[in-house]
Amino acid sequence: MTKFNKITIIGVGLIGGSIGLAIKKRRLACEVIGVFRRTSTLRRALKHKAIDRGTMSIEDGVKDSDFIILATPVLLIPTIAREVIKYAKKGAIITDAGSTKEWLVNKIERTLKPSKPVFFVGSHPMAGSEHSGVEFANGDLLKDSPCIVTKTGRTNKNTLGKVVGFWKGLGARVEIMSPASHDRSVSFISHLPHLVAFSLAGTVSEKELRYAAEGFKDTTRVALSDARLWADIFLSNQKEILKSARLFEKYYKKIIKALARRKYSEVARLLEAARAKRSKFTNGR
Amino acid sequence: MTKFNKITIIGVGLIGGSIGLAIKKRRLACEVIGVFRRTSTLRRALKHKAIDRGTMSIEDGVKDSDFIILATPVLLIPTIAREVIKYAKKGAIITDAGSTKEWLVNKIERTLKPSKPVFFVGSHPMAGSEHSGVEFANGDLLKDSPCIVTKTGRTNKNTLGKVVGFWKGLGARVEIMSPASHDRSVSFISHLPHLVAFSLAGTVSEKELRYAAEGFKDTTRVALSDARLWADIFLSNQKEILKSARLFEKYYKKIIKALARRKYSEVARLLEAARAKRSKFTNGR
Repeated sequence: MTKFNKITIIGVGLIGGSIGLAIKKRRLACEVIGVFRRTSTLRRALKHKAIDRGTMSIEDGVKDSDFIILATPVLLIPTIAREVIKYAKKGAIITDAGSTKEWLVNKIERTLKPSKPVFFVGSHPMAGSEHSGVEFANGDLLKDSPCIVTKTGRTNKNTLGKVVGFWKGLGARVEIMSPASHDRSVSFISHLPHLVAFSLAGTVSEKELRYAAEGFKDTTRVALSDARLWADIFLSNQKEILKSARLFEKYYKKIIKALARRKYSEVARLLEAARAKRSKFTNGR
Repeated sequence: MTKFNKITIIGVGLIGGSIGLAIKKRRLACEVIGVFRRTSTLRRALKHKAIDRGTMSIEDGVKDSDFIILATPVLLIPTIAREVIKYAKKGAIITDAGSTKEWLVNKIERTLKPSKPVFFVGSHPMAGSEHSGVEFANGDLLKDSPCIVTKTGRTNKNTLGKVVGFWKGLGARVEIMSPASHDRSVSFISHLPHLVAFSLAGTVSEKELRYAAEGFKDTTRVALSDARLWADIFLSNQKEILKSARLFEKYYKKIIKALARRKYSEVARLLEAARAKRSKFTNGR
């Protein structure tokens, strides 16, 4: 893969910080620069050694950079991309780490000017945890985890190759697909599970929590995630999430209906079909 | 706690086997006897050292026993209890490990004859995993996990004390409550999460599973559980599960409605309320 001279990460939290640590661990750049909105976060990122140098200015952070990663909350990414495109040098490559792709990629591609050779390819490294903040970052977070890189009619082939190479260099399993396919897939395997986990956690009373065991703990773990971050993600992929939700409700209601009618073999059949599907995921790992 | 001479476990799978291993590890009985329906399971339980002696006959297994634990699939427990009561010696204590309590405790209490001093107290050791079978049993499964012991108008106080002492002896955190309270609580913190996890796993297509990451994995882990075992549990606690499900749907639909209307602050508020609740569970451990 290409080794970059300078890589800039805008937004150095759990994901941005883990990317920084991985780049430094694997020596994929001479310098990792972080761009921050708050000095307190800048200090924490330096202390955690997730970056080599921090700045509060996008202009200062990106002007000499070869590769720029937007790792802020998803709704902010297009606005920040606009600034980055203004100040990035010719030939710079921009990518992001946002959880939804279609509206974001569309917006950023419309911001790019043919007169200025700055390139963008959307990415979604699918790693993370219920924690947030650079303190939880670790250089192996992306190792062996899926990373989707998006391709559109406007994608530059050479840039696509470099972005794919970058994530592979961090140890991720890269898949290339359209922004729309990405959004549909993640609505099922990430956004919907979060929505359902938040709903479950919201349902249980504090009294009952005392008896909760491993099953409840795992099923609702992702409901510990940052609420505003996930409100962002839900809004940014609203259409696909609502579609996935309807399919979830369909399966759920089938079980409920069979249970209400005490149809034992129908309940068992629905649970077994679900179990068989889930077991394929485990085998695939 | 009371040390028993002979303890019998009927149904030596994940839970029954873990109880056997824990009794032997903590030397709470002179002999642990297992009762089986299949010789293959008997051999596996002996090989795994979960019991000292195995038999295919309930009569043989319980006739000299001081303490008898029914750890079969939940729908079978009352039928087996009827046999056990017939052959148990005077003064024997019977308990179970079933996931629902009210119908089961009612049924067994009605089987008890005042003329024969055999005692029953319902239990629910809330440990387990998505696995089943004695191969996955381990002597620390119950350690620090909640165990609910039920009390009714017919419960003998002395027996209650011995059953509570037994589970505490295995390291469990015991709570005493009525069978109805138990069923309401577990419908929220165990049965409903299983129902939702099965529904989620049933919704996702195999293609999308390729991109699934930690969030999906944890949220749907319990959907790897034995389908017939869980169909049993769902049917046995049908009324309470359907009630809990309605509360879940209420919360879920609030989020969906706010999302459909793009009401960002309402979505964020609902997610934050759920997150705050879930975070109380983590702190409690």
